[in-house]
Amino acid sequence: MLTPLFDLGTYKREPRFTNGFYQKDILSVSQFSKADLDYIFERAQEMLAMCETWGTCDLLKGYTLACVFYEPSTRTSSSFIAAMERLGGKVIPITEGIQYSSVSKGESLIDSMITLEQYCDVIVLRHPEIGSSATAAKYVKAPIINAGDGAGEHPTQALLDLFTIQRELGTLDGLKVAMVGDLRYGRTVHSLTRLLSQYDVSLRFVSPDTLRLPLDLMNELIDKGLNVRETNKVSDVIENADVLYVTRIQKERFSDLAQYEEVKNYFVISPDLMAQAKEKMVVMHPLPRVGEIEYKVDKDPRAAYFRQVQNGLYVRMALLAAVLGQA
Amino acid sequence: MLTPLFDLGTYKREPRFTNGFYQKDILSVSQFSKADLDYIFERAQEMLAMCETWGTCDLLKGYTLACVFYEPSTRTSSSFIAAMERLGGKVIPITEGIQYSSVSKGESLIDSMITLEQYCDVIVLRHPEIGSSATAAKYVKAPIINAGDGAGEHPTQALLDLFTIQRELGTLDGLKVAMVGDLRYGRTVHSLTRLLSQYDVSLRFVSPDTLRLPLDLMNELIDKGLNVRETNKVSDVIENADVLYVTRIQKERFSDLAQYEEVKNYFVISPDLMAQAKEKMVVMHPLPRVGEIEYKVDKDPRAAYFRQVQNGLYVRMALLAAVLGQA
Amino acid sequence: MLTPLFDLGTYKREPRFTNGFYQKDILSVSQFSKADLDYIFERAQEMLAMCETWGTCDLLKGYTLACVFYEPSTRTSSSFIAAMERLGGKVIPITEGIQYSSVSKGESLIDSMITLEQYCDVIVLRHPEIGSSATAAKYVKAPIINAGDGAGEHPTQALLDLFTIQRELGTLDGLKVAMVGDLRYGRTVHSLTRLLSQYDVSLRFVSPDTLRLPLDLMNELIDKGLNVRETNKVSDVIENADVLYVTRIQKERFSDLAQYEEVKNYFVISPDLMAQAKEKMVVMHPLPRVGEIEYKVDKDPRAAYFRQVQNGLYVRMALLAAVLGQA
Repeated sequence: MLTPLFDLGTYKREPRFTNGFYQKDILSVSQFSKADLDYIFERAQEMLAMCETWGTCDLLKGYTLACVFYEPSTRTSSSFIAAMERLGGKVIPITEGIQYSSVSKGESLIDSMITLEQYCDVIVLRHPEIGSSATAAKYVKAPIINAGDGAGEHPTQALLDLFTIQRELGTLDGLKVAMVGDLRYGRTVHSLTRLLSQYDVSLRFVSPDTLRLPLDLMNELIDKGLNVRETNKVSDVIENADVLYVTRIQKERFSDLAQYEEVKNYFVISPDLMAQAKEKMVVMHPLPRVGEIEYKVDKDPRAAYFRQVQNGLYVRMALLAAVLGQA
Repeated sequence: MLTPLFDLGTYKREPRFTNGFYQKDILSVSQFSKADLDYIFERAQEMLAMCETWGTCDLLKGYTLACVFYEPSTRTSSSFIAAMERLGGKVIPITEGIQYSSVSKGESLIDSMITLEQYCDVIVLRHPEIGSSATAAKYVKAPIINAGDGAGEHPTQALLDLFTIQRELGTLDGLKVAMVGDLRYGRTVHSLTRLLSQYDVSLRFVSPDTLRLPLDLMNELIDKGLNVRETNKVSDVIENADVLYVTRIQKERFSDLAQYEEVKNYFVISPDLMAQAKEKMVVMHPLPRVGEIEYKVDKDPRAAYFRQVQNGLYVRMALLAAVLGQA
Repeated sequence: MLTPLFDLGTYKREPRFTNGFYQKDILSVSQFSKADLDYIFERAQEMLAMCETWGTCDLLKGYTLACVFYEPSTRTSSSFIAAMERLGGKVIPITEGIQYSSVSKGESLIDSMITLEQYCDVIVLRHPEIGSSATAAKYVKAPIINAGDGAGEHPTQALLDLFTIQRELGTLDGLKVAMVGDLRYGRTVHSLTRLLSQYDVSLRFVSPDTLRLPLDLMNELIDKGLNVRETNKVSDVIENADVLYVTRIQKERFSDLAQYEEVKNYFVISPDLMAQAKEKMVVMHPLPRVGEIEYKVDKDPRAAYFRQVQNGLYVRMALLAAVLGQA
């Protein structure tokens, strides 16, 4: 008879909140009602307060996250790792080489996910193929958080964007939000737009002609009765915007480079442009930027893109705690 | 005189169990007696119970693992990382880039291992060269756990395989175990076979002619008086097998592809084949699979390959705790 | 009204020591006075005692480190990760792939650093460009610890070198220190030399003619009135040296390989050479070595290069705790 290692009688890990998000997958922004958003944002505020007071806590003690990135994304993986660690949970970081290991031996994504599920309580998945997280979620019992599935969704980015607007401006209703840049391929724009369409907002879409918002999304907004309008120049919207959500315009999208050179300056945010904006507005960007916002703008108190990054930490902490039944 | 940072008088980290595995290297299955296996499996059962009740614990608080993978193996490295973290130990994960850093500057494996030893209490090592863990163990004081040395051994895989059979069927004696696939090069088959040869088992080896079990291993089994038999088709063994241990057959092993196409179907586990098997048997696989077991088999309760993965976690937890004197 | 997750009233994370290093960047050895060095080394001694007694502690509980390596360096990144983990802090390890992710999308180092700052309390940065850490420190509020900026500095290496000499010989004054190898390009030699020049030491520089110490550094030493001398052979200095600090001579530095072959043996430390040295002296090396010190020398108690590695852990623990106001 061996000396027992543990006296297990004293404590059992249990979910504390089993309604709402407990054991749910986070796959798409479309699954979030306004009440859901309110809930997550309220929890995110608590996370913020905790981080400022304690730095870390033990809320997710006993839980393990597998953070699986089939394509590198330092910002997103770091954010999830920091979120789990600050909550006192454990992290298995699989942010590299995965394509060179099991996958290159021909293993299917499903098998990989079911394998990792044996070691952990929740999985964060970034994968280049659209629908990959949804597919994984069908086979895996542990909650899956979609951290980007190619041209598909990146729901936690949209949630942190919305949370940022709310924190910066105190409300989501009655705002004029201008989306700038590549509105055709930019999935962050599409997801945020869908979330915003639940609120009483006016939307302005600023893009080159070839990178306009997809037809079906535009029609969706019009059907909902939202006040929408499209234009080619930031200068058309800067004076009235409460939010300027800027994204990258990729040179590669233009078959005619001359055309790119011609239009690109209409989309660069400069101090001169900011001088025309309201005193109380916010400039956001999902980052990385490559020239769309001049560095000189960083000192402007309305430049919210780094606070936006920090909000991602709090929103992801709230989501992790929620799907594990601890928030 | 500085304000001291610590009051060290209150506690000292000490080994609790100094017999058996304390400070031992885990290099080969051949070092495990039946009593050793019993011990590790009993500890693994405790780990399982702890994980289900608490999730994580503090048994290895104060200890640090360097998890060093010179070739990527997400499954194995994740398993060791999760094992150490669930025990409350710290992990230095070195699962990438190692070949591009010090090693590419010409540093020897030994120097790298002695260096890492300065930071940690135990080292898990995966390295493509046969004998690398044994060599490292000669020079390094901290216990080394071999996580695969090329064509050599991968002892923790064999231990988790054996533990799985015991958990699934309640015993190791009196069983009929069929090994299927590439029996010539498959190191997991060789290691598990050696462990099983300590028990009262019948062994059936199912492979293409060119991938039969190596002569010396076969003779070893015969010398021990084990009931062994070889065949070319799974259908020959399916009715009587208690355990079907399936491995990959690599196309590349065949110089004549027509031959590969001819034989490959004899080794694929399908629901039809499963219908011929005993009600109480288990299908195992070291994973990744690439077609040897049809996905439809996954729902069969006898499909044990994902539970096998989870058992790896518990066995590795037991080993880590044992070599550090905490189990 | 939600059930609150935290009762924050009970505790607040606060700096304990706000003089000296609190919130300071560690960019260069030139920022360290003798009093600073004394302070860090005294704290490093406490870290050593803590590691030997407890293994890990909670001194940096509540704090998070982003460990960012734009070029792989397993030794240095492992050392910092182990240091932070042993102090009970959290680590976001970004030791790979970074060049393939945001940076490859054109993100600037500054943006990456400000982004990471949102998740953590301190950043360790390794980057191939000289001055990169200083640049980052200008824009980032969190303390930056320079873990190597190309041909620039690697201050924690120099600190651990100096700490090693003090631990091994009990003093820094009155010593004869010989630097051996590539003295022209070796940044560890330059940094250590600068630190040593604050003490009463004699310096001997042993290198091939083409790899002599840079003129400006030599003049700096002479201006300070230090006893310095240069030579081409280790045998010239071995008898009187208290410290033999050996570095790699890279073949690639020689345009004429015949010249390399001719001189290389003058710089190899062998047991024969050690037989001529004092009984109480130390051989050091920043590692990795590629033949400059024969493996046979490892058993010599004067071979301090692996103890030197371990001292790096303690010095880095001291620095991390100091910049976070906890030492």
